[in-house]
Amino acid sequence: MKAVIITGPGGPEVLELREVKAPAPGAHEVLVEVRAAGVNRADVLQRMGRYPAPPGVPADIPGLEYAGVVAGVGAGVTRWKTGDRVMGLVAGGAYAERVPAHEDTVLAVPDGWSFDDAGAVPEVFLTAYDALIRQAELAAGERVLIHAVGSGVGTAALQVAKAFGATVIGTSRSAAKLKRAQPLGLDVAVDTSRERFGDAVARETGGRGVDVVLDLIGGPLFGETLGALATRGRLILVGLTAGRSAELDLGVVLNQRLRITGTTLRSRPLAEKAALTAAFARDVLPLFAKGALRPVVDHTFPMAAAAEAHRRMEADAHFGKLVLNWREPAG
Amino acid sequence: MKAVIITGPGGPEVLELREVKAPAPGAHEVLVEVRAAGVNRADVLQRMGRYPAPPGVPADIPGLEYAGVVAGVGAGVTRWKTGDRVMGLVAGGAYAERVPAHEDTVLAVPDGWSFDDAGAVPEVFLTAYDALIRQAELAAGERVLIHAVGSGVGTAALQVAKAFGATVIGTSRSAAKLKRAQPLGLDVAVDTSRERFGDAVARETGGRGVDVVLDLIGGPLFGETLGALATRGRLILVGLTAGRSAELDLGVVLNQRLRITGTTLRSRPLAEKAALTAAFARDVLPLFAKGALRPVVDHTFPMAAAAEAHRRMEADAHFGKLVLNWREPAG
Repeated sequence: MKAVIITGPGGPEVLELREVKAPAPGAHEVLVEVRAAGVNRADVLQRMGRYPAPPGVPADIPGLEYAGVVAGVGAGVTRWKTGDRVMGLVAGGAYAERVPAHEDTVLAVPDGWSFDDAGAVPEVFLTAYDALIRQAELAAGERVLIHAVGSGVGTAALQVAKAFGATVIGTSRSAAKLKRAQPLGLDVAVDTSRERFGDAVARETGGRGVDVVLDLIGGPLFGETLGALATRGRLILVGLTAGRSAELDLGVVLNQRLRITGTTLRSRPLAEKAALTAAFARDVLPLFAKGALRPVVDHTFPMAAAAEAHRRMEADAHFGKLVLNWREPAG
Repeated sequence: MKAVIITGPGGPEVLELREVKAPAPGAHEVLVEVRAAGVNRADVLQRMGRYPAPPGVPADIPGLEYAGVVAGVGAGVTRWKTGDRVMGLVAGGAYAERVPAHEDTVLAVPDGWSFDDAGAVPEVFLTAYDALIRQAELAAGERVLIHAVGSGVGTAALQVAKAFGATVIGTSRSAAKLKRAQPLGLDVAVDTSRERFGDAVARETGGRGVDVVLDLIGGPLFGETLGALATRGRLILVGLTAGRSAELDLGVVLNQRLRITGTTLRSRPLAEKAALTAAFARDVLPLFAKGALRPVVDHTFPMAAAAEAHRRMEADAHFGKLVLNWREPAG
């Protein structure tokens, strides 16, 4: 089969389309004929050599999510059959014509969706739902601050928060992205090229602070982010685009009774991934059918142009998701 | 009535026994004739002017817990009557002959206990139970690291953790305190004057780390504390004796999926305090009767010697609790 290979750690140019041995499905795995695969910042880090693949997945094929068609099933699979339209998360290997996935981590692609749309959903919507609703316990009527609201996770989190009844304050350094976030329900847009978000949160909440922060950036602004939380506020950390070093006033954490939680999806054991997949199918997929949520695809590239997609992500030029697809159905 | 007054911010010498106006119980409050009052580090901070009393309690009378006898009840009180032996938390004012307390925050003193023992229980055992069991969700079979295991909260947390089936690694800079902690159930004693606790945790857990940390110190060791946690570990921060500034590797928080929670009792709204009191009466008080928990009183001073008790706390010479009492029943 064809796959996009990381030929060595480096810039986007290290990505090359090559012929590789196709995987076979193991017990309880389906083999998916990939039609589209979302691009994630973790793929860029993996390409740079800074986020190695875990054991059991190809070390040199990036790709954490797929949409496609079941092309075969391994021993013991009961939930899916050849021909099913599916999407989901994997720990790597989705920039390829075939990828295996455990049957308990697979979601049905809703009727009427394109594969490009479906490929843009699993990583960001599962992350947003798990982070905001399951871990930070965001409730209707609460206020949430979402950093980098124009990013893939940001646009998903904005919609999930609105669908669950919260008020959303979103940050971006780009006025154009903030404008594009308005139709997704953004309540308060904070242009961080013009204003400290801490000041904006204080103004918008009457000095009280927000109940939840979805932090995609970390780094030197972490203290300001903590300061934006109300008493008993919850910060859920899902990314570190601004860096991993932070200085912290533990007195604020103590006196405000804050809760800080770090989260990633890729490293979780199967049982946790299966539980999250089941909860998502039950609680979140129906919200797409109702129109409360929709995939946000910035641009779709052919798989052979993966390097170009990575360049666009690194330039922070995208709004929502970047997707790779196979122009022709994979043979 | 007599009370210990903070005559101005400063050292132990600013504490003076004086005659002040006695409080009257408000609606749903009991008036407690105080027999004993535990000393807490927060009292020392308040004396220094660094932890001001919240609205509604005397600004100049320290004391966050009491044991004594109900001397009167306000309007609407149904749960207690004059003569009941009681103990509990207040937001201040317990270094006095009388202190008012909301009836929903009052606990019965178990039969057979001295008031000195009862005065040593509420703050540290409520804190330890709330922090370890309710917030950090410490479960049977898990491992917990308790910093400053010889302190008041430390000795209570050690016993609570053991009573709930956990394995306890405790730190202290004092070999003598670690020795005194052994009969309370300490599984692994780490003398931090001789060894990095991070190394000891790695050795004792086969490199896995602990499931929970009870952190009473914060400060420059916070990074080492975080590093002692296993994947999905929970850190509950209840004190900052080593300082409030910390440097943090957010990458560890993210990749290990850690949860950091700050907690204090004094500032909580009544409903939360009442819920905690009820849970404690149900889940923890019976463990004292069974012998699984016991008050640990280092030394009892007469109320007039409050300055001496503060000096002993500041010298870190105590093991367990320091208690103040009225030598004669309050008039």
